[in-house]
Amino acid sequence: MNSIHKPTLVIDSTKVEANIRRMTKKAAQSGAIFRPHFKTHQSVEVGTIFRKFGVDKITVSSVEMAQYFANNNWGDITIAFPVNLREMDEINNIASKITLNLLAESVYTLDFLEAHLSAEVGIFIKIDVGYHRTGLNKESPEIEKMTNLLKTSKMICFLGFLTHAGHSYHARGKDEILTILESAKHQLTGLKQKYLDDFPEIIISYGDTPSCSMAEACSGFDEIRPGNFVYYDVMQYHFGSCSLNDIAVVAACPVGATHTQRNEVVIYGGAVHLSKEHIIADNGFKLFGYVVLLNEHGWSEPIPGAYLSELSQEHGIIRMPEKYLKQLNPGDLVGILPVHSCLTANLLKQQLVI
Amino acid sequence: MNSIHKPTLVIDSTKVEANIRRMTKKAAQSGAIFRPHFKTHQSVEVGTIFRKFGVDKITVSSVEMAQYFANNNWGDITIAFPVNLREMDEINNIASKITLNLLAESVYTLDFLEAHLSAEVGIFIKIDVGYHRTGLNKESPEIEKMTNLLKTSKMICFLGFLTHAGHSYHARGKDEILTILESAKHQLTGLKQKYLDDFPEIIISYGDTPSCSMAEACSGFDEIRPGNFVYYDVMQYHFGSCSLNDIAVVAACPVGATHTQRNEVVIYGGAVHLSKEHIIADNGFKLFGYVVLLNEHGWSEPIPGAYLSELSQEHGIIRMPEKYLKQLNPGDLVGILPVHSCLTANLLKQQLVI
Repeated sequence: MNSIHKPTLVIDSTKVEANIRRMTKKAAQSGAIFRPHFKTHQSVEVGTIFRKFGVDKITVSSVEMAQYFANNNWGDITIAFPVNLREMDEINNIASKITLNLLAESVYTLDFLEAHLSAEVGIFIKIDVGYHRTGLNKESPEIEKMTNLLKTSKMICFLGFLTHAGHSYHARGKDEILTILESAKHQLTGLKQKYLDDFPEIIISYGDTPSCSMAEACSGFDEIRPGNFVYYDVMQYHFGSCSLNDIAVVAACPVGATHTQRNEVVIYGGAVHLSKEHIIADNGFKLFGYVVLLNEHGWSEPIPGAYLSELSQEHGIIRMPEKYLKQLNPGDLVGILPVHSCLTANLLKQQLVI
Repeated sequence: MNSIHKPTLVIDSTKVEANIRRMTKKAAQSGAIFRPHFKTHQSVEVGTIFRKFGVDKITVSSVEMAQYFANNNWGDITIAFPVNLREMDEINNIASKITLNLLAESVYTLDFLEAHLSAEVGIFIKIDVGYHRTGLNKESPEIEKMTNLLKTSKMICFLGFLTHAGHSYHARGKDEILTILESAKHQLTGLKQKYLDDFPEIIISYGDTPSCSMAEACSGFDEIRPGNFVYYDVMQYHFGSCSLNDIAVVAACPVGATHTQRNEVVIYGGAVHLSKEHIIADNGFKLFGYVVLLNEHGWSEPIPGAYLSELSQEHGIIRMPEKYLKQLNPGDLVGILPVHSCLTANLLKQQLVI
């Protein structure tokens, strides 16, 4: 820890391995292809741990990430984002080297791809199963128009139907999440049955950490794509997706000042390190992270009564009971369990693996 | 604009110049040193525009930023952040080359600096005038202890008292902001008077964009350090610090999908590009940015009734009336006027200056 001079992501590789092992096993028991989302860690090093568990298919959320992992020997990548038609050169370049799968939700996009692709790609039609962020309603007439085009496409191989049930992040409790999962399965299975005669190889692909973590199994889906589970975070803990002990990353931050008279610690660690993602804590206040003490093997349980209460660009403010606060001085390190590890990991370029 | 393939910060240099000109003039009329905060743009190129207006003293918020600007010929830098004692090597390195000023708010920090500095630095004592983020209350006994130490320090030159009245960001209307400014002036002036005999050269330094923008003049302060004004943003517009036309940056984002049935446009532009900073709009909903149309000279007025309503890691969701939405297709560009330009500029590495 002495090598840490500024806000740094500390990764506990034992916890990462345990998280991957658990999800790999669940996918296998469910008979589903495991295609984890790599947007959470965006790290070739963490990717190496996945390889130990036999993972060779991955999901990313941008062409840039696909390029990065394709350049690091990942040969089968799905970009789970409405394809960015302004990056055709990059897409053609990647598709000429590896198996590349894209997402579309309009005839317009398919026509554009057909006219501009120089290498073969796979396409999933994105279905909206209730999150209402992207995707087509299963009743949308656009689906029929798209599949008609895909029957004769030369450059595009139709792979099936894909969804992200992101509304699981707004669900209350396991029951509501499992209802979302069952509804998604029902909707996707219906579409698969409808188009199976014309496209005998199509699959249905599902993924989000809350439902993949809380369901005993994910059977009924051909593929699952959770991502956040590799690190988990305070938000997932609050959903019930994980225990506090499963959280595999902390942001190590130097103490800048301590203020006993207002029970506050100022840390070097702000919105540009942790992101402004927060949850509303039981007391009604905004919570930007729990506070832990770092040691040579990792970190402690959260300090009782302590939490990150405010963030500006570079500053964080920790509320902390006096008896703990008195043990801290400027220049000491504290750890922050992040609210949303995907965003924190994206921001903190410096990483330390323990 | 055709060169833009992914989320990109577009900077209107004419607006940037106008914003700098206005603030430079206000500082001069107030008889205050103008030491703008460079954390907003973090850009050597934008720094060059400041030089045209005679600026040669700057503020930054991290040792890393100080290094960056020191390496690019800026010779007088204040790091307006409680000094990070874990970066003494970097601090000594910068202080050996340029005029470097730091902030302290404890005897502990001064003792540590005195023991570890190998080059001379300036020190401001950080005063809390009501924001309660960092700094000492003007009545704190720590101030007397610190000034006593500073009388005999060999490596530290005491520069005076500095504050950031960040509570101006929570103020309602110009009157409340001007009250904050007057209160800050009163508190800092009192401290200056008290210690002027022992330290005849000390100054008082003040800075935040809302009050420096809304006050007719900043007289009474020896130095001002606003930063955000160089770009402004939707939040500052809502405070009344600027007009919509003063906002000098937009994030250009590719359209991923359009959904007429729910009046939504999905853009490639999410929390990792814009940050999760938001304001609560008049209708009670979260607003992550206004939407503009880009053209070769810059961008349009905000599209009436359109706003960025939701952000996930890479996706943004725009709510937009049908008549405007129908003119957009996947692969087109839209512009987002950011809620907090400092965070958006920090995230978007790709920039285009027009």
